[in-house]
Amino acid sequence: QCNLAGLWKNDLGSTMQVHNVDNEGNFSGTYHTAVSSAKQPIQPSPLRGSQHLDEDGKCTFGFVVNWKSFSDSTTVFVGQCFVDDKEREVLQTAWLLRDKVDGVDSNWKATK
Amino acid sequence: QCNLAGLWKNDLGSTMQVHNVDNEGNFSGTYHTAVSSAKQPIQPSPLRGSQHLDEDGKCTFGFVVNWKSFSDSTTVFVGQCFVDDKEREVLQTAWLLRDKVDGVDSNWKATK
Amino acid sequence: QCNLAGLWKNDLGSTMQVHNVDNEGNFSGTYHTAVSSAKQPIQPSPLRGSQHLDEDGKCTFGFVVNWKSFSDSTTVFVGQCFVDDKEREVLQTAWLLRDKVDGVDSNWKATK
Amino acid sequence: QCNLAGLWKNDLGSTMQVHNVDNEGNFSGTYHTAVSSAKQPIQPSPLRGSQHLDEDGKCTFGFVVNWKSFSDSTTVFVGQCFVDDKEREVLQTAWLLRDKVDGVDSNWKATK
Repeated sequence: QCNLAGLWKNDLGSTMQVHNVDNEGNFSGTYHTAVSSAKQPIQPSPLRGSQHLDEDGKCTFGFVVNWKSFSDSTTVFVGQCFVDDKEREVLQTAWLLRDKVDGVDSNWKATK
Repeated sequence: QCNLAGLWKNDLGSTMQVHNVDNEGNFSGTYHTAVSSAKQPIQPSPLRGSQHLDEDGKCTFGFVVNWKSFSDSTTVFVGQCFVDDKEREVLQTAWLLRDKVDGVDSNWKATK
Repeated sequence: QCNLAGLWKNDLGSTMQVHNVDNEGNFSGTYHTAVSSAKQPIQPSPLRGSQHLDEDGKCTFGFVVNWKSFSDSTTVFVGQCFVDDKEREVLQTAWLLRDKVDGVDSNWKATK
Repeated sequence: QCNLAGLWKNDLGSTMQVHNVDNEGNFSGTYHTAVSSAKQPIQPSPLRGSQHLDEDGKCTFGFVVNWKSFSDSTTVFVGQCFVDDKEREVLQTAWLLRDKVDGVDSNWKATK
């Protein structure tokens, strides 16, 4: 119940493969984004995260994707697992993307 | 240069201890927040993250804090390392906090 | 095209009535939210905003809702108008809700 | 007490002139940003907003800036007024910037 291990797909067509979740709630995996602003072609990217292991299955979780194979940006996702009325597990997430900028003066525009 | 390993403190008084960063950029550590909306007392909480290893030292990074010892929420941070005019390393970060909510109907208010 | 005047409804069931948009792009209206965290009952609330008047109809816009009749919070919305494949106008928006807090020490948790 | 009328300056050097606030809390004015990603040169831009009129002076407020004289973007700000320990009024704000994008497929990256 609300174990993130497995293959997930979002509305944009991005996919996420989460490997085994350990008994601390830690996990790793691969994120394959369908969208990008980078100049280089998209490549599957490593993710690392942590989830709660609440018995009611409505666990909150978060993970980081390091796009290092094609971009110097980093994205974090945070969300919660739900079960919809067709008994399917659904993840509701929000994210922040940090672009690399040259200096603190450009910090205001670095996060979307 | 912009290795996150070490002890960091933010403007609110929260501290972050990052252990060794491996050669993939992965790290873990402990986050001790100075502020909380949880009912239970604050406790140091495990963090997991990933950083870029760019040679210019202006690396972007992200990490997850699982507040499981006192809260069912999760926070993600994303940011970038800079060196200020006094040669000190400074982290600029943004964050999202996910509160656990009962169902999808309350999803709109779960993230701050 | 992409004149915000009219009645709009979002996925949560909230409705927005925008009155006449003037030739500067300014408008006012009423927002009736379907969701709230306030203790008092929801009431229709005044909104004020501004939109671009680009000829391609893909205008960005923003507006403020002052919930004063039942809450001391304020919400801002920002978005863009699109036409979907069924020729319907669709608004894509993001929002920030500011809750009133007692002092600067609580500022970190005031915005969601 | 927390009447936004007047001239304000933020940490980045942007300035905001707010004209008279009416007895509904509505106001207008001019925002002169110090930072921009637009290709054209920055120009002072009209703002419109609304504030609460709470007697304790800790009013929340929001406003929209329409950058139409040099950009097709729109920014919204939301915040709260405080008095610091030197009896100065200080505004704490957060903002969202909407860039114009070509279609819904690019919506994911339009807001920062």
